[in-house]
Amino acid sequence: MENKIILSINAGSSSVKVSVYKARSKSEDPQELAVVEINGLTAPPTTFEYNRGPEKIKGKELSDIESQDDAFNYILKHLEEDEGLPELSDRDNTAYACHRVVHGGDYNTAKVLNEDTYEHIEKLSDLAPLHNASALAIIRSSRKAIPNTTNLAFFDTSFHSTLPASTRTYAISPTIASKNKLRKYGFHGLSYASILSSFSSHLNKAPSKTSFIALHLGSGASACAIGNGQSIDTSMGLTPLGGLPGATRSGDIDPSLVFHYTHSAGAPSRSATKDLHITQAEQILNKESGWKALASTTDFGHISANREIDEGCRIAFDLFVDRVAGYVGAYFVKLEGKVDGLVFAGGIGEKGIDLRKEVGKKLRCMGFDLDEERNKHADVSKQRVVEIGKKVFVCRTDEQLEMARGCVQRSWEMDKGYQFLSI
Amino acid sequence: MENKIILSINAGSSSVKVSVYKARSKSEDPQELAVVEINGLTAPPTTFEYNRGPEKIKGKELSDIESQDDAFNYILKHLEEDEGLPELSDRDNTAYACHRVVHGGDYNTAKVLNEDTYEHIEKLSDLAPLHNASALAIIRSSRKAIPNTTNLAFFDTSFHSTLPASTRTYAISPTIASKNKLRKYGFHGLSYASILSSFSSHLNKAPSKTSFIALHLGSGASACAIGNGQSIDTSMGLTPLGGLPGATRSGDIDPSLVFHYTHSAGAPSRSATKDLHITQAEQILNKESGWKALASTTDFGHISANREIDEGCRIAFDLFVDRVAGYVGAYFVKLEGKVDGLVFAGGIGEKGIDLRKEVGKKLRCMGFDLDEERNKHADVSKQRVVEIGKKVFVCRTDEQLEMARGCVQRSWEMDKGYQFLSI
Repeated sequence: MENKIILSINAGSSSVKVSVYKARSKSEDPQELAVVEINGLTAPPTTFEYNRGPEKIKGKELSDIESQDDAFNYILKHLEEDEGLPELSDRDNTAYACHRVVHGGDYNTAKVLNEDTYEHIEKLSDLAPLHNASALAIIRSSRKAIPNTTNLAFFDTSFHSTLPASTRTYAISPTIASKNKLRKYGFHGLSYASILSSFSSHLNKAPSKTSFIALHLGSGASACAIGNGQSIDTSMGLTPLGGLPGATRSGDIDPSLVFHYTHSAGAPSRSATKDLHITQAEQILNKESGWKALASTTDFGHISANREIDEGCRIAFDLFVDRVAGYVGAYFVKLEGKVDGLVFAGGIGEKGIDLRKEVGKKLRCMGFDLDEERNKHADVSKQRVVEIGKKVFVCRTDEQLEMARGCVQRSWEMDKGYQFLSI
Repeated sequence: MENKIILSINAGSSSVKVSVYKARSKSEDPQELAVVEINGLTAPPTTFEYNRGPEKIKGKELSDIESQDDAFNYILKHLEEDEGLPELSDRDNTAYACHRVVHGGDYNTAKVLNEDTYEHIEKLSDLAPLHNASALAIIRSSRKAIPNTTNLAFFDTSFHSTLPASTRTYAISPTIASKNKLRKYGFHGLSYASILSSFSSHLNKAPSKTSFIALHLGSGASACAIGNGQSIDTSMGLTPLGGLPGATRSGDIDPSLVFHYTHSAGAPSRSATKDLHITQAEQILNKESGWKALASTTDFGHISANREIDEGCRIAFDLFVDRVAGYVGAYFVKLEGKVDGLVFAGGIGEKGIDLRKEVGKKLRCMGFDLDEERNKHADVSKQRVVEIGKKVFVCRTDEQLEMARGCVQRSWEMDKGYQFLSI
């Protein structure tokens, strides 16, 4: 496995991000060689970003790059032609391509992509029509463009395969739940696995003995209760729509609300296609709600900065604090108070000084005591985990590395059947 | 006001309950003279129950009583003809009829029923088609049968008019939310007002200085965080469907779940009528989910007793414990730990020894310490509030009395504009 090249690929609806790693030994994290990103596929201008050591390109506008396939091929070509990256002078040097797939259904480990697994993931798209499509597009591109590479799918749901039955079950007909695969799956699993790894190593504890509350707060936001290294509850549900609100998602609402929002909640959305079955309700609640609806922006930094002068920003900010604090309380109880810490992660978790401060205020009653100065100056660019008070931490999560790490593990454990979390 | 007769009327879809009170002084609770109940309107046999001091009738089967109107008229006639109740020998002696109305929209106090308020409540039925209809039927009967009586409407939502904006707001379009009146209202408000009154008086504190977490657990179940006598959060939402699961309700689910449950989620339910606009989704989630779906019974006592031997009962029980404990944690944080106690109420709250025990186990980390022996022998039939451990209580809630009490208050405060909670 040493020196083999691994690509970690993370495709969103409007972006493609690829990190290039070189494997080292079994016990070492793979080495990051370069990170390349294309953004704005659905909202031009399409821009290109590249980081390889001192070599940096930022905000370069691209033309004729409109699809995930275009973007992925552009990225491969760029990597191949970069003379500073001799390891990839031939794209066939890529041993593994790791794909982040949002919804993995009942898969509780990463999977080698073959006809069977590809088809299975395609079927799952019915459960996550808005979420799996981008990854599937890149997987198709990858199989064509680098046919000798082993493709692996990593699922955001796998980390939560340990949810207890009473938590993952909804109070609905078990027959229909079983037939239609309706249960809480949970998401952001690669992120939570990465946070678990960094946080337990920061505490110098075995992951299997580490218990904490993790908050992955970004334009998609969720919370997770991790007991002895296992997910015991998480806020997202059947799809990423449940739980906390986000940039464009409502989060939990009264289940009957959408029928009072529009009379055509169940009608196909205008953005539905033959392959993409989504209702107007799903479109509204996933794409037209959240901070975008409340504050006319998807930028939480803007919301936080303007909340004293803008009513919409104020309500979006306060509402998010309210819901986040609520989950921390609920998960504190689920962990029966045996909690090594509260860990903020994700873009807002890392940068949201005021958000952390306001959430922290409400949590003193549980023994979390955020220090205002340390909170203000928390910087996770140099060390992955920073303590910002008694039992409160900020962590730089790394889904790309988590996939590469899983891939290295996998190559060593091929024979005994790969487990996504080999802890 | 002294000696005036007050009827407190609580109409469900299948039942009508009337309590008869005689007003005493301004500072005293009105005296309960009799309680009469008809059950089984939609699931015959229709049965009659009567309690007036030593005079008791139980389970008497009635024929030809099919509607709320039939039931109410039968009750009035029975009360009028009972020689042991000379106060009601003439039905026109009734000074006030208090009606429990589930959804009161923006009404934050009880209202005298006149053309305007009746029409307003009728309009609100669009928000609560499954819930307001029974009360409206009885109000019509009452205006016809006892035309000289003042009818008052008490709303389950009023107690929650103090919810902060960040809590009552959903992360959806504010324009549509405002137009369609979409926000968290919360329910069980008469019960929470009753619990607040009993619990604060048990603690010998002013209600306005009493802070606690209340659980009204019955076939409909909810939780409420009460800070200094005011509702600051509650688990039900726009309708009683949100939050905790119940006998036939799902409680919170992923907001997109129902579209994966049935392709015709948005189509009118078979039980919809010209006046009752309800979708299949609302029918399924309100009437065909909850314990009925999980355990094939709506009887939580049966679920609790059979959970060791029946898988469906086990999951329904564990799921309820999981969700209830989660809300207690969330509300502990919202009250920033300043909590005088955790109070169980409602049928399951009063009788669910095992439920209380299992919820209690998870809450030691927050300073609640349920005593197993006291829990086992808690009896609220003699005293309204019983302490069953450190900061854990059981309370007998009384929505009927709460209305009568509000009515007495009202008659004394007519001039300064009646406030539902005069604390």
